[in-house]
Amino acid sequence: MQAVGGVRSLNLDSSRPLLLATGESLSPLTIAFESYGALNSAHSNAVLVCHGLHGDQFVASPNPVTGRPPWWPRIVGPGRPIDTNRLFVLCANMLGGSMGTTGPASLAPDGQPYGLRFPMIGVGDIVRAQALLLEALGIDNLFLVIGAGMGGMQALNWASAFPKRVFACASVASAARQPAQNIAFAELGRQAIMADPDWRNGGYLAHGVRPSRGAALVRAAARLSGQSPDQVRATFKSGLAQERLSLAPDSREDRSDPNSHLYLSRAMDAFDLAADFGGALANAFQGDQTRHAVFAFSSDWRFPPEESRIIARALMAAGAEASFLEIKSEAGHDAYLGEEPAFESALTGFIDAAASARGLGLHGESHLA
Amino acid sequence: MQAVGGVRSLNLDSSRPLLLATGESLSPLTIAFESYGALNSAHSNAVLVCHGLHGDQFVASPNPVTGRPPWWPRIVGPGRPIDTNRLFVLCANMLGGSMGTTGPASLAPDGQPYGLRFPMIGVGDIVRAQALLLEALGIDNLFLVIGAGMGGMQALNWASAFPKRVFACASVASAARQPAQNIAFAELGRQAIMADPDWRNGGYLAHGVRPSRGAALVRAAARLSGQSPDQVRATFKSGLAQERLSLAPDSREDRSDPNSHLYLSRAMDAFDLAADFGGALANAFQGDQTRHAVFAFSSDWRFPPEESRIIARALMAAGAEASFLEIKSEAGHDAYLGEEPAFESALTGFIDAAASARGLGLHGESHLA
Repeated sequence: MQAVGGVRSLNLDSSRPLLLATGESLSPLTIAFESYGALNSAHSNAVLVCHGLHGDQFVASPNPVTGRPPWWPRIVGPGRPIDTNRLFVLCANMLGGSMGTTGPASLAPDGQPYGLRFPMIGVGDIVRAQALLLEALGIDNLFLVIGAGMGGMQALNWASAFPKRVFACASVASAARQPAQNIAFAELGRQAIMADPDWRNGGYLAHGVRPSRGAALVRAAARLSGQSPDQVRATFKSGLAQERLSLAPDSREDRSDPNSHLYLSRAMDAFDLAADFGGALANAFQGDQTRHAVFAFSSDWRFPPEESRIIARALMAAGAEASFLEIKSEAGHDAYLGEEPAFESALTGFIDAAASARGLGLHGESHLA
Repeated sequence: MQAVGGVRSLNLDSSRPLLLATGESLSPLTIAFESYGALNSAHSNAVLVCHGLHGDQFVASPNPVTGRPPWWPRIVGPGRPIDTNRLFVLCANMLGGSMGTTGPASLAPDGQPYGLRFPMIGVGDIVRAQALLLEALGIDNLFLVIGAGMGGMQALNWASAFPKRVFACASVASAARQPAQNIAFAELGRQAIMADPDWRNGGYLAHGVRPSRGAALVRAAARLSGQSPDQVRATFKSGLAQERLSLAPDSREDRSDPNSHLYLSRAMDAFDLAADFGGALANAFQGDQTRHAVFAFSSDWRFPPEESRIIARALMAAGAEASFLEIKSEAGHDAYLGEEPAFESALTGFIDAAASARGLGLHGESHLA
């Protein structure tokens, strides 16, 4: 295990390369991750939090590279719904990411950054890379896998690909296939990066430049589309905005790799869990013993509640134990990051019931045997 | 009247400048337009077609500047639903546009292009400019005003602002306020244009360059978001696309003015007809004698049918004569441009009934008295 600049990572055994869905294999492979809490002796209290397209592994602690605060402190921490007093929480930077895990900015075996030579990857590949990390850490199965947005896609993919290794699964503001409006947004973001003269056909690292204008546009898109319709309209109706053609571009420092965004957003666009099962989503969960919770927010137009209902219906059709909750919220897709008492209490209830069934005891108690 | 390069335009009387909603006035003012059919002696058969954000006045004839075919030949022409054998059809390039009407690329009184000195405009200003054109042409009132998308917004604004001058109004795949997802898309397009190094803070005309990369991204956005969700997904699942990070950028020649897009998309974003009437959309149509038809397409996610239902409900609440039809279609927002027999026959029925009430006789008959 390494810790470079505060980012912990594991170099995986190069004798077992990651076989990608395309048939290519990737080696060497480094996975960067954070962990919170402690693994119990039975190894029965591991939680995998899957981060989303613009996230990283710093779910409950500040990112030491960017200085940004943790992104899900309301959900993960001592006494929070994912209670680190009794649960061991892992969050890994996605395959193809740029916060320490192997991605387009990593050095290829020839010593040069991959850039566009990085292979095409899918959500299933990201999940298999996480599985390799868990195996390397000696964790055979997960008490819970959870994620929002693209993180929820990974959680669903986990439950479908490794049903015996997932006790409980929660998808939050997500979908079993990339909604069309997200594809359209993502394509615009990719074209904006690729149209930036500093992109240099993907080879900007070798030229010491960065397509910052394209990347800023991608960030603006994420910020705007995380809002509810009413919030978006309010932003554009404020006196200031009415007098101007456009909002100010996002000038915050950004350390992410724009090529990584190209790959990860493309992986998200290609995600369609039903397509891997003859078009019937229920088949993805057939015979599944995993307990599922599906959460959606009413004003989320990037991952509309209807996409979550599709997941819930498929789970029920598959005979899986599943609960679905649409939370009334005015905060759009980003509601999952904010203060949503109904979400937090429902998630706590789901996790507590699963913990009880798993013999992990009550909320707030420490169960490190 | 002038005809430059095949584009007809009218220079309006400079003693009557256009007073904008912001309080500024615009003069001189040129409006470019096309017409089809002939005005009858009673001046009772005039139709105003309002074009959308990416459209122009060449609704039923090829654009002589770009060589592009007419954009609505299925709807406007001899024997078509808007039958030019009996109706006199006008379509004007929008105020702020770049196909002959005064816009940011036009010369300001100081002899230099306006660029970003062009004033902020709204849909109401675009409509008032059209009203000035009609007055100059001696047309006191319209038999029909019709438009799709941003064109539908203009049609609704016409009916609301000039109820006594509009006999019938049809809004197609439109909304009484800009839907939030369109605002988000539009903002990305604007930022893409403004991030293009060739934009030169809006002064590209003086430098002999054009922000073509930003403009190409805007076109790609329009093309992609005009599709239905299934079409978008299919585009990104085709074998070719799966192997690539992105679609090829749009390389077709584009003669539109990118600054014009900034202004027009901003006008569209600010459109909220109810807001001008104390938040109650019904008040926009109170006492309205105009016959209304509201059309929506089921797979349109840019102007979802719910936005049209909001219009229809407000019309009914206002006691207006209104019909609403949601057409089942797999063609997304751009369904209005394609072959949709149910739409065409319903539109024909609406127009024929209105023509009969107006004493214009039967479909297919010429009534040029």
